[in-house]
Amino acid sequence: MPSIDLNCDMGEGYGAWTMGDDRAMLDIVTSANIACGFHAGDPTIMADTARLAGERGVRIGAHPGFEDRSGFGRRVIRGISATEVERLVAYQVGALQACAALSGQRVTHVKPHGALYNMAAVEPDLAGAIARAVKAVDPALLFVVPPLSAMERAGQDVGLRVAREAFADRTYEDDGTLTPRSVAGSVIHDPDLAAARVVRMVLDGAVESRHGTRLPIVADTICVHGDTPTAVAMAATVRRALEAAGVAVRAVGHD
Amino acid sequence: MPSIDLNCDMGEGYGAWTMGDDRAMLDIVTSANIACGFHAGDPTIMADTARLAGERGVRIGAHPGFEDRSGFGRRVIRGISATEVERLVAYQVGALQACAALSGQRVTHVKPHGALYNMAAVEPDLAGAIARAVKAVDPALLFVVPPLSAMERAGQDVGLRVAREAFADRTYEDDGTLTPRSVAGSVIHDPDLAAARVVRMVLDGAVESRHGTRLPIVADTICVHGDTPTAVAMAATVRRALEAAGVAVRAVGHD
Amino acid sequence: MPSIDLNCDMGEGYGAWTMGDDRAMLDIVTSANIACGFHAGDPTIMADTARLAGERGVRIGAHPGFEDRSGFGRRVIRGISATEVERLVAYQVGALQACAALSGQRVTHVKPHGALYNMAAVEPDLAGAIARAVKAVDPALLFVVPPLSAMERAGQDVGLRVAREAFADRTYEDDGTLTPRSVAGSVIHDPDLAAARVVRMVLDGAVESRHGTRLPIVADTICVHGDTPTAVAMAATVRRALEAAGVAVRAVGHD
Amino acid sequence: MPSIDLNCDMGEGYGAWTMGDDRAMLDIVTSANIACGFHAGDPTIMADTARLAGERGVRIGAHPGFEDRSGFGRRVIRGISATEVERLVAYQVGALQACAALSGQRVTHVKPHGALYNMAAVEPDLAGAIARAVKAVDPALLFVVPPLSAMERAGQDVGLRVAREAFADRTYEDDGTLTPRSVAGSVIHDPDLAAARVVRMVLDGAVESRHGTRLPIVADTICVHGDTPTAVAMAATVRRALEAAGVAVRAVGHD
Repeated sequence: MPSIDLNCDMGEGYGAWTMGDDRAMLDIVTSANIACGFHAGDPTIMADTARLAGERGVRIGAHPGFEDRSGFGRRVIRGISATEVERLVAYQVGALQACAALSGQRVTHVKPHGALYNMAAVEPDLAGAIARAVKAVDPALLFVVPPLSAMERAGQDVGLRVAREAFADRTYEDDGTLTPRSVAGSVIHDPDLAAARVVRMVLDGAVESRHGTRLPIVADTICVHGDTPTAVAMAATVRRALEAAGVAVRAVGHD
Repeated sequence: MPSIDLNCDMGEGYGAWTMGDDRAMLDIVTSANIACGFHAGDPTIMADTARLAGERGVRIGAHPGFEDRSGFGRRVIRGISATEVERLVAYQVGALQACAALSGQRVTHVKPHGALYNMAAVEPDLAGAIARAVKAVDPALLFVVPPLSAMERAGQDVGLRVAREAFADRTYEDDGTLTPRSVAGSVIHDPDLAAARVVRMVLDGAVESRHGTRLPIVADTICVHGDTPTAVAMAATVRRALEAAGVAVRAVGHD
Repeated sequence: MPSIDLNCDMGEGYGAWTMGDDRAMLDIVTSANIACGFHAGDPTIMADTARLAGERGVRIGAHPGFEDRSGFGRRVIRGISATEVERLVAYQVGALQACAALSGQRVTHVKPHGALYNMAAVEPDLAGAIARAVKAVDPALLFVVPPLSAMERAGQDVGLRVAREAFADRTYEDDGTLTPRSVAGSVIHDPDLAAARVVRMVLDGAVESRHGTRLPIVADTICVHGDTPTAVAMAATVRRALEAAGVAVRAVGHD
Repeated sequence: MPSIDLNCDMGEGYGAWTMGDDRAMLDIVTSANIACGFHAGDPTIMADTARLAGERGVRIGAHPGFEDRSGFGRRVIRGISATEVERLVAYQVGALQACAALSGQRVTHVKPHGALYNMAAVEPDLAGAIARAVKAVDPALLFVVPPLSAMERAGQDVGLRVAREAFADRTYEDDGTLTPRSVAGSVIHDPDLAAARVVRMVLDGAVESRHGTRLPIVADTICVHGDTPTAVAMAATVRRALEAAGVAVRAVGHD
């Protein structure tokens, strides 16, 4: 029986501010990537989100980003060395491990956030720094990466298990990269279309590019978003479509 | 042979800003309490300080404080619940564990900082929250506390090993509490006087109060400061006096 | 014709996070108290909110708070001197003046936020520091204060015009102070009840205490909240009730 | 009699952390560029520095930077729009105006900091945003810019007075740009050499490039640094050399 993991970024509020409907998403996904206090999140949100995820059997992952609350970790920042990146990733993963430990939970994966993810996808120095940090903190952590990226290679080089990620609501270019958000149509808003594409990714190992080309794609986990009511509905539609197509929705490495 | 631990707060710079001469202090003390990014410190300073301490055989401790960089963690903050304190302490301890892991080091103790330390010394709710956080993150961690404080009781209640702390450069009241810093003469600036007091604490288990009364005191570790050139000289004088008096200076629990 | 000002705290998002429906409230109130980047808000939110307010003829006020984003400025912080408070208030007021100037708007009043407001209401040192800061930045600024508070006296002492504030959705004790939020029933959720109380405050100069006592109250401005859909509905109900009772809703000092 | 302004970045501590010897520099320079709380500085440091400068007749300028305390404003950040830059500059300038007003002082100039300065030197969008912000806050403010840069043009375009800045301790390339700090020898450490170069800039309107070419340079103000004891000595040497050469050291626009 084919299977796939569904992951979602969570715990991205801060203090009195909220972001997304994490409780709704925890009933849909199998892996939660929890913000670690640098671009979003704080100790209380982290501990609560980890506990809620654990109670539902959802895997708990660290979602480290640049120290950039005002930009939500989406800003490209230059002048942070690879060594500094290694340390800020370690710091955030360790912080989440401890917040999860408060309710007896364990962190099982790491997926970088925003600009850090996008930069590390194509910059081997950054990718290597992140991979080394993950390895040093816990070599059993699963490293969530874009397929065929510098991050995937860096994870493999240090001996981490990697999980290749595809996106439910984004279009792809002919070369297999994500269409930039600035391009009209790059974000898919139709839940049924997104769901059909995800089912095809899992069953056929392929997706149609923005220009109609068939692209082979190997995904271990599919990212769905939860920061709007529409997004929650899309995630639910994706999950139902997968199950209707006979695909088991379960965390990577879960037997 | 009698022995005592010397501890010092360290890693209290931030970004481009420095605080104290950590390298000099690491040649004097046996335990380093490293700031964890909330009142001072950042991932790079934490990783560097932990590595330097580990290389010299100095024990590595977490020094968590309130999220209060502009006040250096010295401001009393009301309206943070015990649950929130439990989480912010866990967060910081976990963050340091991961930064230490980057150079293969381990965190062995936790000593709260500034207002958090002072408040938890007398408030059982806060003390209990901190103790539970430490226990959840790693039950083998040593909890550094003021003697006879709410923190000492909280540590014992959850089953943590505690290390009772005395101060080399502070005077005591007749009831055994520290003289507030606002009182003239509460901080001792004469290295020889401080050293003589510390030797007496270790060998006689006593210290003279500000009013001349003999106070019994049981200390497992002595706090010295390192944030000024004078402070480094005082710490060195204290160490030399202890060794001259036949006291072994070594970390708590080190055999 | 009797008149009253309606004020609302606004611009309390931060970066990607939002708080309340400021656009809806700007159609209801006559004075907007805009967060200044310390407890909430940032330069972009401040400039946008000031422009939106100005375009609608709503008065623009600074809403300075403690530097406490994670606690939304609601935490009591000790160890900030009166001089430091004077400076952090001046900083925030000046910052808003400049952000407002980008769209040709002017700041006309200052109302402290959260813990700073509550502390300054009863602490003459803090109240005086705030009043001096407001005076130094622009002596024409209106100082929004609780009636009969240390803030009102401080404002009068330095020669500022003051606007006394009452609350639409809060109950009062027999001594005229607000019932603490921790007391059940201290927050009024029934829009019609709140509206009736406000109308009575304006027309009769009185409000009924939580225990049924008639309290004289002199208010120049009524605070309504806008951070929930219910709150917006209540604010609208209050405004309609005032107008139906023949009360002009307009800013203080507007002729 | 020829004249020149000497400017120095100041107030770049934060909370308990200090940076440089501002008091020593205030006896040497004629213009102080005061950090505004985003990359460094806080309300208390700003108010104190402005008061000290004003008491000595030193001109007070705003030194706004990116919101980047951990990187001291030196990191290039992408994804902040020109509109956002306009607002963050206005915010900081207004904040300093208010802090200066507490001691009756006025802000007379604006010089961006670090990455913001370097990026705006060559990016017309950013330069225009900064110039518009300065103009909106106070059209009488002097805009300190690199000669022949996008900032100089932007300042002129909006009708601001500009002051062209040269550096005492940096070498220049043949095209008149600063040698990047990463190039060995790009920073001059010999006070006498720096002083001789500054005197030549003022009297001959020229400087020798790193490769020995004579470069014409028109400077209204010379930047000296004060963040190390050596830097203070160099600044003093530069001032003495200028005065010995018959150059009046005084603020731009001071008659």
